[in-house]
Formats: sequence, C-alpha cells, structure tokens
Amino acid sequence: MTIDFSLDDEIVQLADKVRTFMSEVVIPAEAELVHGAHGYPDELRKRLQSAARDAGIFAPHVPTEYGGLGLDTRGQAVVFEIAGRSLLGPPALNCAAPDEGNMLLLEKVASDAQKIKYLAPLAAGDVRSSFAMTEPAPGAGSDPNRLATRAELTDDGWVINGTKWFITGADGAAFFIVMTRTGTDKSTMLLVDADNPGVEVTRRIDSLDSITIGGHCEVVFTDCRVPEDAVLGAADRGFEYAQVRLAPARLTHCMRWLGIAQRAHEFAVHYASQREMFGSTEAALGMAQLQFADNEIDLAASRALIWQAAYALDQGQRAAQETSVAKTFVAEATNRVVDRALQLCGALGVSHDAPLASFLAEIRPFRIYDGPSEAHRWALARRAVRRYGVEAPR
Amino acid sequence: MTIDFSLDDEIVQLADKVRTFMSEVVIPAEAELVHGAHGYPDELRKRLQSAARDAGIFAPHVPTEYGGLGLDTRGQAVVFEIAGRSLLGPPALNCAAPDEGNMLLLEKVASDAQKIKYLAPLAAGDVRSSFAMTEPAPGAGSDPNRLATRAELTDDGWVINGTKWFITGADGAAFFIVMTRTGTDKSTMLLVDADNPGVEVTRRIDSLDSITIGGHCEVVFTDCRVPEDAVLGAADRGFEYAQVRLAPARLTHCMRWLGIAQRAHEFAVHYASQREMFGSTEAALGMAQLQFADNEIDLAASRALIWQAAYALDQGQRAAQETSVAKTFVAEATNRVVDRALQLCGALGVSHDAPLASFLAEIRPFRIYDGPSEAHRWALARRAVRRYGVEAPR
Amino acid sequence: MTIDFSLDDEIVQLADKVRTFMSEVVIPAEAELVHGAHGYPDELRKRLQSAARDAGIFAPHVPTEYGGLGLDTRGQAVVFEIAGRSLLGPPALNCAAPDEGNMLLLEKVASDAQKIKYLAPLAAGDVRSSFAMTEPAPGAGSDPNRLATRAELTDDGWVINGTKWFITGADGAAFFIVMTRTGTDKSTMLLVDADNPGVEVTRRIDSLDSITIGGHCEVVFTDCRVPEDAVLGAADRGFEYAQVRLAPARLTHCMRWLGIAQRAHEFAVHYASQREMFGSTEAALGMAQLQFADNEIDLAASRALIWQAAYALDQGQRAAQETSVAKTFVAEATNRVVDRALQLCGALGVSHDAPLASFLAEIRPFRIYDGPSEAHRWALARRAVRRYGVEAPR
Amino acid sequence: MTIDFSLDDEIVQLADKVRTFMSEVVIPAEAELVHGAHGYPDELRKRLQSAARDAGIFAPHVPTEYGGLGLDTRGQAVVFEIAGRSLLGPPALNCAAPDEGNMLLLEKVASDAQKIKYLAPLAAGDVRSSFAMTEPAPGAGSDPNRLATRAELTDDGWVINGTKWFITGADGAAFFIVMTRTGTDKSTMLLVDADNPGVEVTRRIDSLDSITIGGHCEVVFTDCRVPEDAVLGAADRGFEYAQVRLAPARLTHCMRWLGIAQRAHEFAVHYASQREMFGSTEAALGMAQLQFADNEIDLAASRALIWQAAYALDQGQRAAQETSVAKTFVAEATNRVVDRALQLCGALGVSHDAPLASFLAEIRPFRIYDGPSEAHRWALARRAVRRYGVEAPR
Repeated sequence: MTIDFSLDDEIVQLADKVRTFMSEVVIPAEAELVHGAHGYPDELRKRLQSAARDAGIFAPHVPTEYGGLGLDTRGQAVVFEIAGRSLLGPPALNCAAPDEGNMLLLEKVASDAQKIKYLAPLAAGDVRSSFAMTEPAPGAGSDPNRLATRAELTDDGWVINGTKWFITGADGAAFFIVMTRTGTDKSTMLLVDADNPGVEVTRRIDSLDSITIGGHCEVVFTDCRVPEDAVLGAADRGFEYAQVRLAPARLTHCMRWLGIAQRAHEFAVHYASQREMFGSTEAALGMAQLQFADNEIDLAASRALIWQAAYALDQGQRAAQETSVAKTFVAEATNRVVDRALQLCGALGVSHDAPLASFLAEIRPFRIYDGPSEAHRWALARRAVRRYGVEAPR
Repeated sequence: MTIDFSLDDEIVQLADKVRTFMSEVVIPAEAELVHGAHGYPDELRKRLQSAARDAGIFAPHVPTEYGGLGLDTRGQAVVFEIAGRSLLGPPALNCAAPDEGNMLLLEKVASDAQKIKYLAPLAAGDVRSSFAMTEPAPGAGSDPNRLATRAELTDDGWVINGTKWFITGADGAAFFIVMTRTGTDKSTMLLVDADNPGVEVTRRIDSLDSITIGGHCEVVFTDCRVPEDAVLGAADRGFEYAQVRLAPARLTHCMRWLGIAQRAHEFAVHYASQREMFGSTEAALGMAQLQFADNEIDLAASRALIWQAAYALDQGQRAAQETSVAKTFVAEATNRVVDRALQLCGALGVSHDAPLASFLAEIRPFRIYDGPSEAHRWALARRAVRRYGVEAPR
Repeated sequence: MTIDFSLDDEIVQLADKVRTFMSEVVIPAEAELVHGAHGYPDELRKRLQSAARDAGIFAPHVPTEYGGLGLDTRGQAVVFEIAGRSLLGPPALNCAAPDEGNMLLLEKVASDAQKIKYLAPLAAGDVRSSFAMTEPAPGAGSDPNRLATRAELTDDGWVINGTKWFITGADGAAFFIVMTRTGTDKSTMLLVDADNPGVEVTRRIDSLDSITIGGHCEVVFTDCRVPEDAVLGAADRGFEYAQVRLAPARLTHCMRWLGIAQRAHEFAVHYASQREMFGSTEAALGMAQLQFADNEIDLAASRALIWQAAYALDQGQRAAQETSVAKTFVAEATNRVVDRALQLCGALGVSHDAPLASFLAEIRPFRIYDGPSEAHRWALARRAVRRYGVEAPR
Repeated sequence: MTIDFSLDDEIVQLADKVRTFMSEVVIPAEAELVHGAHGYPDELRKRLQSAARDAGIFAPHVPTEYGGLGLDTRGQAVVFEIAGRSLLGPPALNCAAPDEGNMLLLEKVASDAQKIKYLAPLAAGDVRSSFAMTEPAPGAGSDPNRLATRAELTDDGWVINGTKWFITGADGAAFFIVMTRTGTDKSTMLLVDADNPGVEVTRRIDSLDSITIGGHCEVVFTDCRVPEDAVLGAADRGFEYAQVRLAPARLTHCMRWLGIAQRAHEFAVHYASQREMFGSTEAALGMAQLQFADNEIDLAASRALIWQAAYALDQGQRAAQETSVAKTFVAEATNRVVDRALQLCGALGVSHDAPLASFLAEIRPFRIYDGPSEAHRWALARRAVRRYGVEAPR
C-alpha cells in the first residue's frame, strides 16, 4: 500500500538488541578512547566486533551468504542510527565507513574471485580496507574530473602513479580500491594490496576529527604494479562504479551521524533537566526549550529524509536527488543539533568530561566529506533548472 | 512491509486529474482576484466548485456517504498539496480551512441530526461555516485556558456571551461552532446558526493576508440563545474535541501551503532560467543556485514530515508530536521558500504582475495561525524533557 | 581624537524635536492611511510638510541656501532614523526616496540654471520628482549594463525612446531624471518634464508595498524630445553620476528603514509586556526574550554600520564597501526585526489593528530595491578576492 | 565632534608594527605548536614576549607606569585585533586572557602593596595569573548567585573552602584571584599565592580548545588560609568588582577573536582564489562568493560593535548593554566566519595542514565563555522590557 512508516517486527527486535548492546558494551568502552590520539588500538575494534557477533548483530548490511544479517537500506536506516550513537558503534558492527561502502561496491561489481579474496575477509571483520579517490589540489576533490592519478595497462599488468589525499582508514588497511585515470577521460578502479611495494602510506593527516581508525592518510603510488585482473569490474568504468558506491555511502553516513546527534540531544536534555539555574531547572527556561524543540525538529526531518532516500534505493533507483537532499540536510542538521547540545551544557559541553566536544569535532567534517554541501546544492539546483526551467510551471 | 513512500495508482490518477484541473481551471481564474479586496465573490467559489464536481475531484477528504472521495490523511497529503498550488484551489475542491476541519469535527462528534443539518450542506459546498475559538486579549489565544466566552445552561437552553476575534470565514458563514467556557474549567462546543439574533459579525479585521473568503472577523455573542441540543457531542468536552480537530487541521494546512511554496519555487526557477544577467542566465549564478537548492531541500523535508504525520493520524494516533513537528517546520520552511522565490524574481517578485508577493502576504501568518511556532516548540520541548530528562540516556 | 560615537548637542536637540513631531503629528496622521490604497493624497503630504516647516525640522539634508538644515551624512543618520519611525515621516520632512537622492544628485551635478528650475522647488516640497533608471527584462535591472532606453542627439536636441519600469514616485512627479544609453557603452542622464508629450506614465504597478506616494510605475518614452541643455551634468557620464547618487541613496534608505524596525521592536516589547500568557507576561517567556534580544542586536549592529558608512561618505570617500555592507546587513536585519515583532504580536501582528503587517509589506522589498542583497554580496566578494586573493595573508 | 571612525596616527603606526611582528615572528612560531597537546612550553611564551618587548609593542593595554603602552579601550580594539590573528599573539604581547583582565582589575581595585606584589610582575610578563570564579554544578556558572566557595574571616585571617572549575591558566599561575562567598549574600575577592598549601590544581580539564597556556583547571581550596590583607579592595564587594572586570574583559575577548576570524577569512579567500574547480577558480563560484561576502559583513559589523562598546567604556560608562550586544554578536559572527572559511577549504580546512580546524576548536567555546549567548540575551531582553515595556512607544 501507500506511504507507510511502520517497521517490521524483526527490525524492531533487532533494533532493541542493538540498543542494548550499545548501552551495555559500546558506550562503556568509550572510556578507553584517548583524546588527541589518532583512532584507537585495533584490539578494541576486534574485541567489540567479537561481542557484536556474540550478540547476533554483526554486519547487519552484509548479505547472509557473507555472514551478515542481509538488511535492505531501510533496515540499515534503523539499525545504523542506533549503532551510530557511539563513534565506536559502527566499527563494532562492522558497518563503519569506508569498509561498509567498500563491501557494497565489491558485492555489486567484484568478480567471484575478488569477492572471495577481498569481500569475504572484509565482511568478516578480519581486515580493514580503504577507498583511494580524493587527491591533493589540483587533483580530484569535489570535482572528480580533475582526477590525476593514472593507471597504464602494460604487458605486465597495470602501473599506477599518483598521490591520494585524505584516504580514510588507509593506515592499517589490508587493501585499497584505487580510482585511477585511464586514457583521457575514463577512470578505472583497481584493487591494490597494502603490501604492494609500489604503495606507501606516507602520513596520517592530523585533522579536526581524530577517531576514525586508520586516520585520513596521504597515500603515494609509485610505479605500483598490479596484475591485469586487479581491475574491479571492467576497465574504464570507474566513474560509473563511483556512482554505485556514492549514493548509498552518503546515506549510510547520514544514518550513523543521526545517531550521534540523537544521543547528543538526549544528553543535553537530561543535563539541563538536572541543572538548577535562575530559580528553575535550565530545561524549563525558554531559551533552552527553543533549542530542544529545534533539535527535535531537525532530528525528525533528518530521519524522514533518510528513510525516504533509503526507500528509493531499495526500489533500485539511483536516488541521486533523494540522497543529495538527505546528505545536505542531515549533515547540516546534525551539526546544528550537536552544536546546540554543547551550548546547552556550557563549560561541561566544552570539556571532554562530556562526549559533546568530541562529537562536534567528529561531525563537523561531515558537511565536507562525501561531497561538500555546496557541491550537492549545485547538483540540486541544476536538476531543478532541468525540471522547471524550460516550461512555465502551472 | 516496512517504510514505504509509494503511492497507490488511484491516488496517482486522482493527483493527475487535480493537477490538470489546477492548470486549466483554477490558476486561470486567479486573474479574477482583486488585490487589496477582501476575499472574492462567493459566485467564483461556487463556479469553481461546480467545475471540480464535474471533474470528479470535489471534496476529496469527505466520506463517500456525504458525496466526497473518502481519502485518508495520506491521500489528502498528496491531493491537498496540488490543490494548494493556488489559493483558489482548496475552496474549489471544498477542502479549504476552516470548512475542511469543521467537516472532520462534525463527522467525528456530531449527532446524526446535526450531521444532516450541518455536515451534509457543508460537505456539498452549499454553505460555509466558521470555527469560533480565539478571543481578543486577555482571552483565549495561544493559551486556550484563558477562554472567556461563557455559555450558561438555563431552562431555556444555552445562553452565550462573549467576543471572538480572528474568526476565519465568519462573514457569510451559515453557522458557527463556538467554543465556550462552561463551569469553571470546562469547555463546551455549541452550534449556532448565523441568523441567530444573538450573534453579530461586527467587522472584518483588515490583515496582511486577504484572500480567505469570509475574512478574519470579530464576532460578538450577546445573550445568544441556542437550544439544549445545540451542543456538539457532549457538554463540557470542548477541550477534548478541540484536540480532535487541531492536529489534523494543522496538518492539512501544511499540505495546502506546501502547494503554494512548490509553485513559488517552480515559478522562480523558470523565471531565473529565462533572465539574462551578467553574461549568463540568473539561474546559472551560484547565489541563485543556492536558493534553488535550499528550496528543494525545504520542500522535500516538508513533504516527508507531512507524510509521516499523516501516516500517524491514519493509524488512529493523536500524533501531537508529529503534527507539531510538521506544523512548525513546514510553516517556516514554506515561508522561506516563498521568500527566496520572491527574492530571485527581483522587482517582478515584489509586483503583483507575479503571484509571489501575494503568496508571501498569505503565507506569513501561517507561522502564527493554528498555534504559533513558539507554542509548538514549547510543547515539543516539554515532551523532550519528559522523555529524556529523568534517566540519563545511553 | 579617534573613534567617537558622541553626538553634537545641536543634533541631539534636533533629534528631540523630530521625535516630538513624530509622536504628536506624524504617527497620529497614520490613521488617515487606507490599506490597499496606493499611497495617500498629496494634500496629506503637503499638510505634514507645512507642520514640519513650522517645527523647524523641514528638509534636514538640504543645504541651507535651499532652505534646509544642511546636515552632513552623520547628522542625517540620526535624524532620518527617527523620521523613519513612520512611513509618513520622511515625506513630512521632505527626505523621502526618490526625492532625497535626486536633490543630492542635482546639487552635485546640475548646472545653476537646472538647480533653479529643478532643485529649488524640489527642496521646497513644491514638487515631487522621479529617477527613471530600471527597465523591464531584458533591460537594466541589477545589471546596469543592460540599459536599453536610448537617447540620440539630433540637431533638434535629444530624442529618447524606451520603457522604464518600477519607477518610484512617477505618478504625480513634476520631472524625471532619465538614465539613457548614448553611443554603445555610455550613458547620459536627461531631465524631462512630466508634461513633455513624449513621456507617459502608463500604469502604477500593483505591488507588495503600497504606501510610497506616486507608486512604482511603468513609464514609456516615445520620441520624447528635450533640448540639448536637458543633459544633467555632461553627456556620456551617466554611469558615473549614478554612482554619485547610489551609495548615499542606499544609505539613507537604511537610516529610514532602521526607524521602522526600531519602532516595530518597541511596539512588540510593549505589547508582550502587557499580554498575560501561561501564568506570566509573554515578555517574561524565554522564547520572547530571545527575539527581543536578537532585535536589540540587529538594531545596534545596523546603526553602527550606518554610522560608519556615513562617516566614510562625509570624508569624501566613495564608500562603496561600507555602503554595500550596510545596505545588505541593514536590509536583512530590519526585515528580521519587523518579522519577529509581528510574530510576537500574534494575530494582532497579522492584523492592520497594529502597524506591523503594513511595516512588513513595506520593508520586504528593501532587500531588493537599491541593489538586491545578491548583487551587493557579489561586489563584496569580488573586492575580497582583489584584497586577499593574490598574496597569501599573514 | 560627532561620530568619528578615524584612527590617530600613533595608533596606526603601532598597528603597523604589531602587524609586522605578527607576520615575521608570531605566525612562524605557530609551527612549534603540537596538536592535541595542552598549551605549549612557557619558554615559547617568554621568547615571544622578549621579542615583543624589543619591538616596542609589549603590554599595549598596561599603564606606562607599569611598563606598558597605556592604550585606552579603543586603542586596544585596534591592536588586540591584530595581535589576535594568531593564538600566540596575545600571550606574546602579554594581553591574553585571563592575565589581561586581571591586570585591569588589580589596577582599579588593588592596594598599592598589592600592585607592587601582584600587578608589577604580571604586567612585566614575569608571572601568569588566574581568576578563580566558576564552579562545578550546582555552583556558580552562568548564575553567579550560586557561588558555593566560602571564605570565613577568623582571628587568623581568611579560610577558604570550595572547588573551582574551568579556571583558565591555573596550571603554572603564580597567584589566583578567588571569588568567594562571604556571609549569606555577599562575595569577597581574595588573592591567593599558588604555593599556598591550601590550594591545589587537581587536574587540567581536557577540552575542545587546547591552546590556552595553563589550560582550564579544577582548583580545590581546602582550609586555605590567607592573611586578612589578602582581600582585593574591600571585603563583601566581590560581585561589584566582578562587574568592573567583566564588561571590559568580554570586550577584549571580542577583539582578539575578531583577529582570528579576520585571518581565517583571508586564508579562505586566498585559498579559493588559487583552487581550480569546475572550470574556474573556486573563488569565482557564486556559493563561495556568498560566503566571502557574509564574512565581510560579519567582520565589519563585529568591528563596529566592538569600537562602539570600547568608546562607551572609555567614557567611563559601565557599558553593560554595549558589551553584551558586542559579545553575543561577535562570538556568533566570528564562529560563523571561521566555520565558513573551513568549509571553503574543504578537506584542507579539516586538516591541521591549515590553521582553520584549530581556530574552529578554539573559537567555539567563546559562545559560552564570559557569559553564554543565552545569558547575555536574557539580560538584553530584560533591559528592553524595562525601556519599552511600560509606556506605549510612539
């Protein structure tokens, strides 16, 4: 039937399990995070994943044949949000970026042999991976047409040369999916093992956000040779595959960040409800109420837009419009929510005695990652002009 | 299954019919509107309703037994938005405020005799009606507890005394549903015919918006006597019935205003796509693109929130949270959209050569009508405190 | 010394006189305005001007030799703001647009003979004038380079052909300053008497704002002949003269609109301080306090930016940066203030029982008139790039 | 005379010297900062101060008798902004918080002996100091009336007990000015040497901002005994003295943060002017231009409000209104500027390869420190009600 916002019982039950797991296992583990450190030990990730496996909630988005729960995008929307309540939640469930998007891409495009070699261990949490697309200026950033890393097909396989930048999770990844220019205006994706002597993670880039395991790295490819069958899918179809990954990946990002924002909101409401100020609780003051209400609205609108885009993806649509709308709105709305939550908690919010300062540092870049708001707005505007620009609307 | 944003074929076909009707009949009739006049002749309303009846799209929300199409709230969400593209659309389909909300209330609460006497002609478009609740300060406005109009039950029926203010559609209405105080803290709704000598429409209040037929009026009840069976539903249950009407009524408002905002957006995109400026079209300038994109986002989020609240109402929920979120967001978002559209059209937008100036004047009060944003935010905040204030969230 | 925000005693005394005049004469006269009418009778303007003359506050910006008070721009900033508290204030003091800007232009550029013929009666309030620059698309709007109205110099003087649009005050003006294209890329300003048979005010354009006397009109020039000495200043220097007028004119607009916004704010604070709601006054509710405070901030920042730009103009600078910053900020800030004031007054704010609905309709176009915000932002951005774009800042 | 925005030659020359010093000495020293570390070695501060002394720009706000340049508040507004371009600038010039505010307070209130003991070495940069006012909940935060740290006057001098929280610069400070409750509703300020055995800096609180030397600390006073003449000024006048310090201190904060925001803006304009994207420079894209322009406006309005408040303080006014307006606007505006600058620089902005991520983390708390925006807005609103609430404005 038409327009339905209900959830299947199975999803509700799974969501409950994930919520319990977050409360009892993941959030307590946040005490092990060290501020200012890059990421955290891989041992913590493995320990949490093991607990998630025991709880029956591991890899919710992964097809059952690869050991996951096989959720569709709408199911992910529900579960990833809850997992997203802690920055440790998505890695615990093995649904963190960039691995989660890489699994999707491999599943859709990889050969059977590649699936066995790369997808299976990745889905199992045995290894981590990295998606090497963005480059330092003047290379590929918001504008993918500036792609400068090249791959040449020789008798001896592919030879890759170029520098990648802000490659998330690179330090410690077992393999890279590398976006390369082939020919003049085509692109090819290549699978490169991390122990290939032609690839080097030259540094972790110090950045505002610091909790992503493996950091954001600079990765240099120097005469990096891979065999001809290292092509992911087919040669020269890299731009097309990038689209396969991009829309869902930006949406799952939204789901996870929505979880952080929801938790930040709850934290602030709770704090302000205890805090006495000017003869009442802070929570009873109109200026706090306004911020609570704006958070409620931002969260509800974010969730509705995510669900709508998830539905579109589940129908097999490309959903470029829906995911651009969702990404732009959710990135900005969740930033607003976390910012308000921090403000409501005053100096406590600024301190790392509360999780809000860390949430703010982690979520701010989301307005840039996966397409800055400006690039999405540009795409939305051009689409609007195509739709309404020619004929006078009635 | 879970989370579905699809539309039934019947709704899609009905929506197409309404869209055609809007383009071919209603929007051309806008030329008959006179700026600065209060409303428009009742003859125009009747002519458009007759055409809507012929097109098979009349009274989409009315149960079939009263001659309507029997849409549920989700169906209304789709159809009212399209009807809302013109300020003449909802009256043409007989789904304009306050009649539409009054039909709902009568259907849910009225006795059979009252339904025959009041609902049937109202649903048929033979008469108009009015809902007399708000009062001049210090009476009932945002705070219904200040209700000052009183009804006393005497041997001779009810006697009503008091002054109502901003009573929409009062001038020319056939009857009023009057909210009165009974006893100390109760309220009773009474049905009063407009020809009752105890009721007088003392003036139309000149206002920023001016197109609503029947205006916003001051209505004075002076020893106004009605029989004992003029009670709508049961005595002393007025506050409860007000809730029955309020949540759906504020949501159908959102649907209709979304239509205006959508049309304003399309108008501006089209205009800017034709307009040459600084060596390109205005539509190719980044500052215009930003506004197009923000409109797309505001419209999509508004629609998603409306659909979600409509779903909740269709499940029989009170949906106070969902409709407050939707009302607050949609009222502000549609105001932003119309404001941007006007800005993009420059002096043309300011002029009544385009419909935007009129749209802006009509839509601005929606941030106040049906509960000002501040009152909804206050309710949202208090609910958030109840939910998250006591126990520390995890 | 440096940085001084004090006011001379003379200005303070003049400001007091103007404030008294506004309270006792101008604001009471607002009762004579008819909503929905275009403007008001010229008799009212003349009556108010006569009273202003008696009060010794007439034409504050006009050089004393033309019967004014000879204030510099900073003095105007103080006095025009107070006069701006009512839409009738600037015409009463003969400092309303477009006359006020035209007087400035004539004083700076006109020949002695032209000053006698045009400036003297204008400064005295005997006649009104109009500045005919903007054109319907695809002519000159935000982009003056699209100027399409042409003037040709013949043996028999100038011949003007073209259509102007949104020409403020045209209906009833005694003369026009007409911006024409001469040659391929030059512009010339010509003085045209309203009784010239080649000029016709073809219509008043119905618009969101409606109180400006003489309206916003369409004016058609058809083989309109004027003598060779009808050139204002020198031929081919029209674009340059436009700059002479533009920066000060946009700033005096800011001054006047600041007055409206200040009054709207005061009205709302007073209203909310009387209004009982939810067990206190509305003014004691945090959501109202937030809006009061934001109004205070917007008003203070507007005033400071106006004063700064006024100072720059008084130093003989072109002040394009300062006046663009002020115009953009003040137009948006005063719109916000009036919008919040209306919101705080609820249905009363929407009604014409209070002045706020009218203020909102009148002030909204200011974000478009005298350069839309987008055009000013574009200029500000380009200037920033010139300043910081080349050398890395330190 | 009236309204003047000019600067004395001496100030202009000093400003030039400071700018050169910032470019040549301070900004290069930023390379020595380590991200994630708390503060930086005191050796760096001393080295920079020595260089500033050599450059003749040390302690610009300090009276000449204490070795400073004796600038009034307006002069500080100019110089502190430039010094504020680097987070190392204010410590270099010995005008960083909290020392700068403490110097002001000591100069206004301390006895001659106290000036010799505390002010002289502080002004000379020989020692650092700390102002111990805020407390953990439920103590004194936004609401100073909740002050919980007590001082009792005994035969043996004062005995202080209580815990202070978020005490900036405490770690390494030579002395504290401690705000204590005396009696039931009074407050007394006491001078406590850091080596007093009754005071302990129990921890540095990890926080979003991390560059302030000495951190934000928890400081516990346990039976901390100080002699009777450790009273700053007179006993029981602590709340009054707090006001002496608060208004100027919040304004000098604004000056310094304006410098950071100005530099962030320049950095982003320069970066975007070099960055090629979609066939032009990023700086030529409308969405970037919009952000440049909004930065220009925010910076100009911030500066104007700071100057106005500085003028008021220099007239000997309390300037509570002006400094609250400035603090609220500038804190939010500079946050917006830095946020936009970071956004414009994309992943580079997120990284610590550019200074923007650090600027954002450092400036965000300014919306909370020195009175959160909500507290200032509350004060502004109450003042507006006092001014306009009683009599109907005209």
